Amino acid sequence: MTTQPVPEPVVRRLCQYLRELETLAERGVGKVSSGQMARDLHVTDAQIRKDLAYFGQFGRPGVGYLVEPLRDELRRILGTDRPLNVIVVGAGDLGRALLRYRGFRRKGFHLVAAFDVTKSKIGRKIGTVPVYHIDRLPEVIREQDVKLAVLAVPAEAAQSVAEALCEAGVRGILNFAPTTLETPDDVAVRLVDLAAHLEQLSFQAIRAKI
Amino acid sequence: MTTQPVPEPVVRRLCQYLRELETLAERGVGKVSSGQMARDLHVTDAQIRKDLAYFGQFGRPGVGYLVEPLRDELRRILGTDRPLNVIVVGAGDLGRALLRYRGFRRKGFHLVAAFDVTKSKIGRKIGTVPVYHIDRLPEVIREQDVKLAVLAVPAEAAQSVAEALCEAGVRGILNFAPTTLETPDDVAVRLVDLAAHLEQLSFQAIRAKI
Repeated sequence: MTTQPVPEPVVRRLCQYLRELETLAERGVGKVSSGQMARDLHVTDAQIRKDLAYFGQFGRPGVGYLVEPLRDELRRILGTDRPLNVIVVGAGDLGRALLRYRGFRRKGFHLVAAFDVTKSKIGRKIGTVPVYHIDRLPEVIREQDVKLAVLAVPAEAAQSVAEALCEAGVRGILNFAPTTLETPDDVAVRLVDLAAHLEQLSFQAIRAKI
Repeated sequence: MTTQPVPEPVVRRLCQYLRELETLAERGVGKVSSGQMARDLHVTDAQIRKDLAYFGQFGRPGVGYLVEPLRDELRRILGTDRPLNVIVVGAGDLGRALLRYRGFRRKGFHLVAAFDVTKSKIGRKIGTVPVYHIDRLPEVIREQDVKLAVLAVPAEAAQSVAEALCEAGVRGILNFAPTTLETPDDVAVRLVDLAAHLEQLSFQAIRAKI
């Protein structure tokens, strides 16, 4: 395995490859060529081979990739081969939707706790996940060994919550609040900007195609 | 303006530049250098200049970019300078959260209708948005001149709904259902894979930093 930094677009594509391999494995497909994967995912097969080369030697000329072993390898690379405990901060509409989103658990993420400041929400469960007062962040993070947090609070609260998360030992924040966060260098932050998704779609659909 | 195809990562960064310019404009900042934008957004300033060069000549050496004109220009490029009507299909947890997400309207997207099949939801409003039975898709899309749709239905329903949307004249689909859609070539689809966001974060937070 290489020690050179892996560019973000490569990581994004790895997740696409993993998704495709999971689908193939569910269908009982044992082998796949880079050409077939390339067609399904609208990338070039050279791109697939180059991306995977960051992490080792996979597949054989004329044979292709073995679906399940490569799937497992990608999970190891992404760190999702073991279940990871994740918390959701903010139990509003979006927080609730995320807590009920079945896709997370299927990918090895266990939502173990939610946090809010609204009294009527605290002590309840959303789906199977208990909602705690935000004062209990440090305690729950420590007890459940939580490294990843999903931030679904209003933009104006996001920075202070992010600081509390970092202080409590969280290493990665998935930020749904439409704002940029200042965090220590050793904490990874990904902004999920839902409006930007629509903007990019608008560009593709309206400008490029009409 | 160029006619060469614009790579997806460029479009993604354009949205980041727009976000930054909007923030600067709100703060009353009149000018910004590519160097300053580069530092704020963690890209190189050469990247910013190269991305913008797809669309024309912006900024002047030693002066930088004029914030509001460049913001307006980016909105024109992305097609969001005029309000766009958008519908949401699926009024479950996620659909409701998206219907209440304030970020869309701020970026020029008007959510004009929601659709579901559950009787108890139809005829109600979520926030200010009416919920219709999905049978009324073609009619509402035509009357409101809808080109963009957000898909927040279960994965197993996504393909058939996507086909109905395409037939009714939708040009772009933002797909939150964790599945790949088959659509005509002239319809743009963007998959928002929430689990993939967490996977990429996991890679950054767990593998790369611990």
